[in-house]
Amino acid sequence: MKGFLFNGLHAGFKKNGLEDLGVIFSERPASAAALFTRNKVVAAPVLVGRQRIESGVCQAIVVNSGNANCYTGSQGIDDALHTAVLAGNQLNIPKELVMMASTGVIGAPLPMDVMEQALPELTRGMSSQNLELFAKAILTTDTRIKVSSKTCAVKGKSFTVTGIAKGAGMIKPDMATMLAFVLTDLDISSILLKSFLTKACERTLNRISIDGDTSTNDTVIALANGLSHAILEDSNDSLVFQECLNEVMGDLAKMIVKDGEGATKVVRITVKGAATESDALKAADTISQSNLVKTAIYGEDPNWGRIVAAAGRSGADLDPYNMDLFFDDVALVRKGRWLGPDAEKAAARIMKNDELHIQLDLNMGDAADSILFCDFSEDYVRINADYRS
Amino acid sequence: MKGFLFNGLHAGFKKNGLEDLGVIFSERPASAAALFTRNKVVAAPVLVGRQRIESGVCQAIVVNSGNANCYTGSQGIDDALHTAVLAGNQLNIPKELVMMASTGVIGAPLPMDVMEQALPELTRGMSSQNLELFAKAILTTDTRIKVSSKTCAVKGKSFTVTGIAKGAGMIKPDMATMLAFVLTDLDISSILLKSFLTKACERTLNRISIDGDTSTNDTVIALANGLSHAILEDSNDSLVFQECLNEVMGDLAKMIVKDGEGATKVVRITVKGAATESDALKAADTISQSNLVKTAIYGEDPNWGRIVAAAGRSGADLDPYNMDLFFDDVALVRKGRWLGPDAEKAAARIMKNDELHIQLDLNMGDAADSILFCDFSEDYVRINADYRS
Repeated sequence: MKGFLFNGLHAGFKKNGLEDLGVIFSERPASAAALFTRNKVVAAPVLVGRQRIESGVCQAIVVNSGNANCYTGSQGIDDALHTAVLAGNQLNIPKELVMMASTGVIGAPLPMDVMEQALPELTRGMSSQNLELFAKAILTTDTRIKVSSKTCAVKGKSFTVTGIAKGAGMIKPDMATMLAFVLTDLDISSILLKSFLTKACERTLNRISIDGDTSTNDTVIALANGLSHAILEDSNDSLVFQECLNEVMGDLAKMIVKDGEGATKVVRITVKGAATESDALKAADTISQSNLVKTAIYGEDPNWGRIVAAAGRSGADLDPYNMDLFFDDVALVRKGRWLGPDAEKAAARIMKNDELHIQLDLNMGDAADSILFCDFSEDYVRINADYRS
Repeated sequence: MKGFLFNGLHAGFKKNGLEDLGVIFSERPASAAALFTRNKVVAAPVLVGRQRIESGVCQAIVVNSGNANCYTGSQGIDDALHTAVLAGNQLNIPKELVMMASTGVIGAPLPMDVMEQALPELTRGMSSQNLELFAKAILTTDTRIKVSSKTCAVKGKSFTVTGIAKGAGMIKPDMATMLAFVLTDLDISSILLKSFLTKACERTLNRISIDGDTSTNDTVIALANGLSHAILEDSNDSLVFQECLNEVMGDLAKMIVKDGEGATKVVRITVKGAATESDALKAADTISQSNLVKTAIYGEDPNWGRIVAAAGRSGADLDPYNMDLFFDDVALVRKGRWLGPDAEKAAARIMKNDELHIQLDLNMGDAADSILFCDFSEDYVRINADYRS
C-alpha cells in the first residue's frame, strides 16, 4: 500500500512496559471518514474527532492505549487538542490534519508529560515497515494484534485496503468498535468513503458482541490517500471496493471476537425467516448477549433451551412452536419439536470445535440478520475483576 | 398462619436425590392471584395457569423442580393438566382448584410416571409444619431456601403473610421471578389481591437481576384463605397489607439476589434525579446488567468509569458532566468531576463489605428507581457451563 508510514513505542501510559503510543501518517493529506460511539459518555478524542472529521481531510492519527482520556472534562479536551498541536509540529503539518484516539481506563487524566516526551521519537521512527508496532501500541487486554489487508483492482489499477483494530472487552459496538483504522491508497472523496465505510461497518463491526458493553471511545477512521491512482469509475468498481472493505473489516471484526476477553470459541448466530429485519436483529442480539447461552457454549453443552428462551424474551415476533434450530448442519429443533438425545449428542460433538454456527429459523418471513460473538469463561471474570490492579 | 399445609419430598425429577416435588394446600378454597413471565417461550404450567387463575380461586399448588416442562408442546400441556387431575383425586378437590409450577431444564418431557408414583405420598404427608420441605423441593441451583413471614393486624385482627421463593439464575424477572408463592390468611377478594400483588411485585421481584436472562417459567402465585377473619375495611388497612406484602416480597427478592449463582455481594443501584421514571429505570437496568460493572464489584475495584459508561449507553437522558456518583456515603464523582484517588481508596474499603449501595444522581429532575443485583464471579461461569452434566 502506497504512502502510509507507521510507528509504535512504549511512552509510559501503560505500567507493563509494552507499546502504548502509535502513529499513522499519510504522505499526503487523505480523504477521511469516521464513525464514533453512540454512548452518551464519550471520550475527549471522540468529541474533538467529530468536529475535525467534518473537513473530510486527515493526514495523521495519534493513538494512545492505557488511558481512555474519557470523562476527563475540559482538561481532557485541552489535552487531546494539545496532542494534535505537538504532533503537527513534529510532522510539519497543520494541527487540523491530526486526529486522535485513546483507549484504556476511563476517568484518569491523560499524562501530557508522557505524551510530550514521546512524540519526537515516535514521529522520527515512522516507516512503512512499522505497521506491526502501531498495531501493538493500540492494544489493551487484547492478546494479539489485529491486521487485515487485501489488494484489489479497478480498471486494471490495483489498490490496497489495510485495516488495523484493537478490542477485546467492552465490545458491543453501537457505531464502530473500540478502535479501528482502515487505510487505502485508492483515490476517493471523503463523502463517498464515508458511505462505503458506513455500509461495511453495519455488516461487520456493528454485528459483533463480546460482553454487551458499548465503549465510550469506539472510533473507526478511514483514510484514502489516492496514491495508487486507482479511482472508482462505475458501479462495478464501487462493488469491488465495497467488497474489499467488507472483507477487511469482516476480518477485523472476527479477530476482535476471537480475541474476546476469556473467549475460547467464536460463534455466529444467524436468525432467519423473521417477519422483519428488526425482529431478526432483536433475536440475534439477545441470544448473542445471553450469559446463559455463552456459558453453555463454553461448557460445550448443546443447551438449546437457553437459546429459544433468549429468543422468547427478545421482543421479536415469533411463534415458539414454529421454529427450527441448527448447530452447524445438525438440526436440534424442527417446528418447535426437540429432535431427541441423538441430535443433541451430534450437536455436542460439533461444539468441541473452535467455531460454531447457530441458525434459528423463525419461519415467519424472509428477513435475516447475523451476529458474531464469543463464549464466556472464568477468564473473562478474572480479567475484568483485576483490570486496574 | 392459619389453614395452610405443606409437604416436599424426592420424587425423582432430580438426579441428585434432593427434594424435587412439593405441594401447598389451603384448608379451604382461597382467593387467588398470579403473575407470569412475559417471555414468549413459556412453560406448559404457565399456559395452563394463565387460564386457571381467571376463576380467582385455588386450593392447591403442585410444584416440581428438575424439569421445567417448557418447550414440550401439547404433550407438556397434557402432562400439566394430568398432574392437576392426579393431585385433585388425592386431595379430594376439583382439578380446577389445582395450580402447577415447574422449574429446571427446558425442553425435556416431564416424566409423568415419577409424578404419578410420588403424589400419594406427597399429599398424605402434608402438615402445617412442613413448609421448609416445600421450600427445599422447589430449589434448583439455589444454595438455600427462601422464606419470609410477617404478621400484621387490621382493626385488631392479626393476619400473616408468608412468602416462599426459589431462583438463583436466569433471573431478570419481567413480571415475576422464577417461582414465588405468597400465602395469607387474610380475607380478601382475588381481584383486590391481584392489585396488591402487582404493586408489590413491581417494587420487589421486578427490580432484581442476577444475569439478565428472563425465565420461561417465572410464576408468582398468591393465595388468601381468609381463615384469620381479618378483612380490609379502609384505606389504612390496605396500606398495612400492602406494606406487609412489600416487606415479605422484598425479603424474597433480596434472598434471591444474595443466592445468585456465584454471587459474593448484593448491590443496590439507585438512579435518582432523572428527568423521567423511565430514564431512571433504563440507567439502573443497564448498570445492573453490565458484566464489566459486575466483575469490577466482584474484584472490589471502585472502577466507577464503567458505571458512568453503562449509564451513557442506557438510552437515558443525561448530561455526563452533571452527574454525581456515590458508593454508600462516599462521593466519587460530583458534577462529572472525579474526586481523586483518596475518594477511590475510601470506596475500595467500602467494597470489602457484603452489601453496597451505589447511587447515581443525574441532577436532571425528580424521578428515581432502584434495582437489586449481585456481582459476577468465576463460579457463575462454572455453574452454568456444567449445569446439565
